[in-house]
Amino acid sequence: ARTYNITLLPGDGIGPEVVSVAKDVLDAAGSLNGITFNFEEMPVGGNALDLTGVPLPDETLSNAKKSDAVLLGAIGGYKWDNNEKHLKPETGLLQLRAGLGVFANLRPATVFPQLVDSSTLKKDVAEGVDLMVVRELTGGIYFGKPRGFDQDENGDEIGFNTEVYAGYEIDRIAHVAFETARKRRGKLCSVDKANVLEASMLWRKRVTKIASDYPDVELSHMYVDNAAMQLIRDPKQFDTIVTNNIFGDILSDEASMITGSIGMLPSASLGELGPGLFEPIHGSAPDIAGQDKANPLATVLSAAMLLRYGLGEEDAAKMIENAVLETLNKGFRTGDIFSSGMKLVGCEEMGEQVLRSI
Amino acid sequence: ARTYNITLLPGDGIGPEVVSVAKDVLDAAGSLNGITFNFEEMPVGGNALDLTGVPLPDETLSNAKKSDAVLLGAIGGYKWDNNEKHLKPETGLLQLRAGLGVFANLRPATVFPQLVDSSTLKKDVAEGVDLMVVRELTGGIYFGKPRGFDQDENGDEIGFNTEVYAGYEIDRIAHVAFETARKRRGKLCSVDKANVLEASMLWRKRVTKIASDYPDVELSHMYVDNAAMQLIRDPKQFDTIVTNNIFGDILSDEASMITGSIGMLPSASLGELGPGLFEPIHGSAPDIAGQDKANPLATVLSAAMLLRYGLGEEDAAKMIENAVLETLNKGFRTGDIFSSGMKLVGCEEMGEQVLRSI
Ligand SMILES: CC(C)[C@H](C(=O)O)[C@@H](O)C(=O)O
Ligand SMILES: CC(C)[C@H](C(=O)O)[C@@H](O)C(=O)O
Repeated sequence: ARTYNITLLPGDGIGPEVVSVAKDVLDAAGSLNGITFNFEEMPVGGNALDLTGVPLPDETLSNAKKSDAVLLGAIGGYKWDNNEKHLKPETGLLQLRAGLGVFANLRPATVFPQLVDSSTLKKDVAEGVDLMVVRELTGGIYFGKPRGFDQDENGDEIGFNTEVYAGYEIDRIAHVAFETARKRRGKLCSVDKANVLEASMLWRKRVTKIASDYPDVELSHMYVDNAAMQLIRDPKQFDTIVTNNIFGDILSDEASMITGSIGMLPSASLGELGPGLFEPIHGSAPDIAGQDKANPLATVLSAAMLLRYGLGEEDAAKMIENAVLETLNKGFRTGDIFSSGMKLVGCEEMGEQVLRSI
Repeated sequence: ARTYNITLLPGDGIGPEVVSVAKDVLDAAGSLNGITFNFEEMPVGGNALDLTGVPLPDETLSNAKKSDAVLLGAIGGYKWDNNEKHLKPETGLLQLRAGLGVFANLRPATVFPQLVDSSTLKKDVAEGVDLMVVRELTGGIYFGKPRGFDQDENGDEIGFNTEVYAGYEIDRIAHVAFETARKRRGKLCSVDKANVLEASMLWRKRVTKIASDYPDVELSHMYVDNAAMQLIRDPKQFDTIVTNNIFGDILSDEASMITGSIGMLPSASLGELGPGLFEPIHGSAPDIAGQDKANPLATVLSAAMLLRYGLGEEDAAKMIENAVLETLNKGFRTGDIFSSGMKLVGCEEMGEQVLRSI
C-alpha cells in the first residue's frame, strides 16, 4: 500500500466546501487502489490573513513543500479586495506558486457532451472542444522586476511592471507543452505578441528551436489578439496552446468559458521537482459561499489530475473521472450547470453521488 | 462648402481595395453635404518598406499630421513577417499612432441584426450586442522603456518590455471613456489586473478619481481574465469598456469576433489635437488580396467615423451608415458575411451598392 502526504488548502469562499468533497473522493478512490492519504489542512489567502496577518504563512509553504501534492480550493473575497498588495489573498497564491516552483500550469478546456448546451456558443461550434492551455506560471509580468510606483520627469506618478523571460524559462515550459501535445493530438500553437514585444520575440525564437526535438508535433504560432478571436470563431482548431503568464491567464479563462461549465474545469501546476499544485479554475464565489450551492466537480477533477500528474496514480485518476461522467449521466446537476429535466443537487449531495459512482 | 484634406493610407493586402471603395463613398456623401475632399495617398507598412526601406516614411507622417483626418486600410503580410523589428510593417503603424498622438482608440462591437447568424454565439446571446471598447493606444507595454534583449546573471539571454502608465495618460483616456459612456448608455467598465500589477493599481486609482467628474456614468471595475470570460458569457452586460493598450488589443478583437462580422467593424483613434486615424478592425488578409473578395464595409464605416469624430460632419456620417444598413437590407453580402438566400457580391460591387443607397 502506498501512502501520500497531501496538503489541503481550502482557502476562501466556496473553497472549503469543494475541497471537503474532493478529499472524500480521494479517500474513496485511494482505498480501492491500495492508496492511503495523510491530509494536512493549512490556511492560505484571506483566511490566512485573518488568522496570521499574511496571505501565505511560512508554515503553509513549508508544509506544502514537504508534501507529495497540494490541493487548493480557491482564494479571495470582497473583504480583502482593497488590501494593499502584500496583504492581498492573491499575493499569497502567487507566493505559493513561486515557492513551489510550479512553472507549468495545465488548464484543460473540455466540453462535456452532457453539458454542451450550457455553452453560449452554438452547439456545432462548442461540441467536441477539447483543448489544453499550457500557461507559464512563475515568470513574465507577474513576477518581473523592476516593478512598483515612481514619478516621471514631470513629477506625475507612474505605475510600472516588467514583462521579462529568460531563455531557460521559455525552454522548460516549451518542453512541457510539446510533451503535452505529443500525448494529445500532436498539435501545438504557441501564442505571443512577437510583432510588438521583445519578450515575445525571444519566446517565439526559443519555442521554434525546441520544436526540432519534437518532429512528431506540429507547431504553429499565433498572435494573442488573433488567438482571442479564433477561440470564439472555431475553438476546435486548437489542441494544445502554450503561452506566457498573462496571456495564459486571459486565454485560459476565455477558453474555459467557451465550454460553458467553468464549474467543471480543473488545473494542474507542475514544477521540475517537488509537489504539484492542483486547483479548480473557478474562483472563490463569495456570493454563494456556505450555501451548499457550489459545484465541487472542478475540484474533484483537480484531485484526479493530482493523482495522474502529481502521484502517477493513473488508475485512481481514471476512476474519479469516470465517476464524474457517470454522475453527470445520471442527471445530477448543481445550479451552475442545471438544465430542465435534470436533478438539481447541492455541493454535498453532488459529492455523495460521485462517491456512489466510484 | 467645406474642404478637407484627407491622407489615404491604403497599406497592404486588401487595404487598397477597401480604401478605394471608402474614398468613393466619402466623395459621394461629401458632395451631397457640401463637402469637398482633397485626397492624398501615401505609403505605410509593407508597401512603404518595399518602396522606401522604412515602414513609415517621414513624408507619410508629415503629410498625415498636416491633414484633417487619416484613413488607413490595413498593413502587414507574410512577406515581411520575419523582418527585424524596426523593419516590420507593424512598427510603421505603431510609429504612426505615436506620431499622430492618437491615444484613444474607439472600437465598437455591434451585432448587425441582419448578420446575427454569422456569430458563433447563440442568437439570444449575440442579438443586440452593442458595446464600445476604448483602448489606450500610445502607452503601456507597446511603447514602455526599457525594452529589448540582454543577458541575465547566468549569461542566459532575456527579452523584456515595460508596462508603464503615468497618471496623465490614464486620466486623459478615462475622460474620453467617460464622455463616450455618457453619450451611450451611461455604463463604463474599466478593465485591469489590479490584483497583480502595479501599473493596473494606478490605473484603477486614477479612473476611480476621474469618476467623480461624471456622476451620471456608472463605473465598475473588472479583472481582465474575468472580462475575457464575461464577453462570451453575456456580452450584453457591457456598454463602454476602457482598458490599457495590450488588454484592449486582446479584448477588442475578442469582442469583434463575438459579432461574427469582423469585416463590418470600424475604429477611430483620436488625440488631443490634430487629425484622427480611422481604420477597419480587420487585418490585411493577404490570402484574398487582389481578388475582389474583401468586405469594404468596415472601411466604409471607418469613413463614417472619420466624418463624425474627425470632422464633426454628423449628417454625412449618418448618411453613410444608413446606406450600409440599406445595402445589407437589400441582401448584398461579401463572402465573409454570406448566408444562403443572400446576394453574393465582390468588394467593388458592394461599394457600388453602397453608393446607390446613398
Ligand atoms: C487570482 C489571480 C492572481 C490568478 C492569476 O492571475 O493567476 C487567477 O486569475 C488565476 O488565473 O489563477
Ligand atoms: C498590427 C498590430 C501592431 C496592432 C496592435 O497590436 O495594436 C493590431 O493588432 C491592432 O489591434 O491594431
